[in-house]
Amino acid sequence: MQLTLDHPDLVSLAAGFTDNESLPFEETRELLNEILGSPRTRRIALQYGTTGGDPHLRRLTADRIRKLDSAEGAPFNALADASARATNAKATQRSHPVAANEVYSPERVLITNGSQQLLYMLAECLCDPGDIVLVEDPTYFVYLGIAQSHGFSCRGIRLEADGIDLSHLEQTLEGLRRSGELKRVKMLYLVSYWQNPTGITTSFVKKAAALAMLKRFERAAGHPIYLLEDAAYRELRFAGHDVASALAAEGAKERVIYTGTYSKPFATGARVGFGILPKPLMTVVSRVKANHDFGTSNLLQQLLCRALATCRYERHLPALRRRYARKAATMTEAMREHFPEAVRWQEPCGGLYVWARCPRPVRSGVNSRLFKRALEREVLYVPGELCYADNPARRKPNHEMRISFGSATESDIRTGIARLGATLREL
Amino acid sequence: MQLTLDHPDLVSLAAGFTDNESLPFEETRELLNEILGSPRTRRIALQYGTTGGDPHLRRLTADRIRKLDSAEGAPFNALADASARATNAKATQRSHPVAANEVYSPERVLITNGSQQLLYMLAECLCDPGDIVLVEDPTYFVYLGIAQSHGFSCRGIRLEADGIDLSHLEQTLEGLRRSGELKRVKMLYLVSYWQNPTGITTSFVKKAAALAMLKRFERAAGHPIYLLEDAAYRELRFAGHDVASALAAEGAKERVIYTGTYSKPFATGARVGFGILPKPLMTVVSRVKANHDFGTSNLLQQLLCRALATCRYERHLPALRRRYARKAATMTEAMREHFPEAVRWQEPCGGLYVWARCPRPVRSGVNSRLFKRALEREVLYVPGELCYADNPARRKPNHEMRISFGSATESDIRTGIARLGATLREL
Repeated sequence: MQLTLDHPDLVSLAAGFTDNESLPFEETRELLNEILGSPRTRRIALQYGTTGGDPHLRRLTADRIRKLDSAEGAPFNALADASARATNAKATQRSHPVAANEVYSPERVLITNGSQQLLYMLAECLCDPGDIVLVEDPTYFVYLGIAQSHGFSCRGIRLEADGIDLSHLEQTLEGLRRSGELKRVKMLYLVSYWQNPTGITTSFVKKAAALAMLKRFERAAGHPIYLLEDAAYRELRFAGHDVASALAAEGAKERVIYTGTYSKPFATGARVGFGILPKPLMTVVSRVKANHDFGTSNLLQQLLCRALATCRYERHLPALRRRYARKAATMTEAMREHFPEAVRWQEPCGGLYVWARCPRPVRSGVNSRLFKRALEREVLYVPGELCYADNPARRKPNHEMRISFGSATESDIRTGIARLGATLREL
Repeated sequence: MQLTLDHPDLVSLAAGFTDNESLPFEETRELLNEILGSPRTRRIALQYGTTGGDPHLRRLTADRIRKLDSAEGAPFNALADASARATNAKATQRSHPVAANEVYSPERVLITNGSQQLLYMLAECLCDPGDIVLVEDPTYFVYLGIAQSHGFSCRGIRLEADGIDLSHLEQTLEGLRRSGELKRVKMLYLVSYWQNPTGITTSFVKKAAALAMLKRFERAAGHPIYLLEDAAYRELRFAGHDVASALAAEGAKERVIYTGTYSKPFATGARVGFGILPKPLMTVVSRVKANHDFGTSNLLQQLLCRALATCRYERHLPALRRRYARKAATMTEAMREHFPEAVRWQEPCGGLYVWARCPRPVRSGVNSRLFKRALEREVLYVPGELCYADNPARRKPNHEMRISFGSATESDIRTGIARLGATLREL
């Protein structure tokens, strides 16, 4: 905020905001008119509700995730040139798990204020100070903030093109077992679709294997080790197939926590998210939510309910995806034009981010010359170092940038990348 | 919920829900149409915002509370027979504090998901396990739940007709000082307007005196002791004058935390609340809110912004107050007709509740005959014992009932009170 005030011409490629032009203004207006025009729904919309969420929205949510996880989804391709992205899209090839219906039961669904609230409440419910959560390396930086404020630590697991490195996960768990710290490990947190910040999607096979591996270490831990799957970007896919969530893996019912959101793919300002949780966690987290706010705004829940039930939600997605596909292409074209050869990135197939890697000697952190010069040239990115968990055994990588094509216009993307490219070339 | 399913004819006088008939359906629809029809506001409404809240809403909120606390408000009387309630209304006579404008600065305002979220975050920020918060005896029972989940304890301060008993407050603080526990005391929590559950309003004089008293004990405590004023029911007044908040008292800027809500007086399902906080707390609580949800839904904030700016909020209040005045009168008339002489209560002048006191030998708790028989007759109330903090030195009072005229229709109120009266007479 302060930066924007001090730099009125600043192009921010830092914020994880969504695209302004494709927000569903007319759909939202129509939906709210219908809701507030009907004697039945208007009363629900403007009154308090129950902590767990509107029963209808919980059912629609459970059904939606079940369908996504079954083989019902068709491949989607918003890209003119799909083949160019084939490599990255490989991770998203469909597997065919047999998802148990009982996993997708409305009683296991909790409606929240964005999925962020659920990440927070799970930290409250599961983590004591000194505990450990395994995360991707790098990971969603706000999660590192939650960890810090609750006094637990995050341990990074290396990422590969199709998700975490399973041998590094095993080696880490084994190391923690040997050092007697396994009893402090509560969860593995994965941002599994178009990851924030790298854009990587975890394959179903890896999720299932990670879940099975966690299970093997539970006896030594003395308690459940959950797989927390953050699917915030799942619907922002513009190439390839959807990947089944970890809910479709064996043993998911007792150990997988799935969090999703309707904010990014639809009316962002409405901030409705949800979780699918094992029963015992559902009970505990609902109690915490009762103390937080006794339930998410019913007006917003009715909005999403109706958007889903009337298929306006579903119909909104293709245009949204085409829009992000175009903006992503605009960004990477500009990067090819303006960035030095030595800077590397992958073509995004979904999400909101490009993760750019400079050669190691280049520093990108908040105190780096690159960051300061970029700011002088009126362009802002998220320094990669912010996305890494502390680890005394290594220096945090400090040569990467998260660049977002979410909220900037195409023209701003071109200007911003040109400015960033000039800065990079200068250094 | 389960009770309602098992007892389809149940009249619930337990829930603290608002009146369904007077919810602002048309106003909300108009407001949302205007917001989503304007290119400027629709974009704000459907995009993410900042953690502290919309700057416009923060300013409108600060202005509103400043006006309420100044001598600008006119007395309001929605009652035909005002004199009958003169005794209770006495507490609400206006004092004339000189509220410092800087106290009502927008930078001190935080927009939250109902005022509940702020109560929760303050507990997170200020209270460690083993700490003590002073509360009214009885108090808002959900607050006792927050205390339990954070491991701090609540100490009850006796209530009089115009708020807490100051000599009991002093005696309690003195006792805690002597026992060395004063360093564990973090706040005094007052539900100062039409208190939940008793309906009592705290006079301005008492709030100012309590604030000064807390200040005197700070040296011995070794840290600030805050006055947390929960004004959730402030606008639901149907007789007498408004009372200035503790923000208007001397020393308020550094020590008073004020929480309010737009849910109860306006669109309940929107769930927008707010707080006015001392600067250092504002910083800390905002950080916690960033981890909870990075800010309350912008769509809802725009709704309230426009409702306030166009005076639809203000214009909605008189009808709402007349409605609650009528429902309260319906309830107390029915109580006079059906309840045994020995049951005592005060005529409400605001809020949602009547607090009925049975003679001591009668028990009203969840395991009492009264509660069970009432349920058999299909009527539900909140047992008074739930509203008292644990105190090893005394048995919790167990002969009171919180009876709500908030959401039940007038006909249900008559039916419910008749059933409850029959149960009371039977016992």
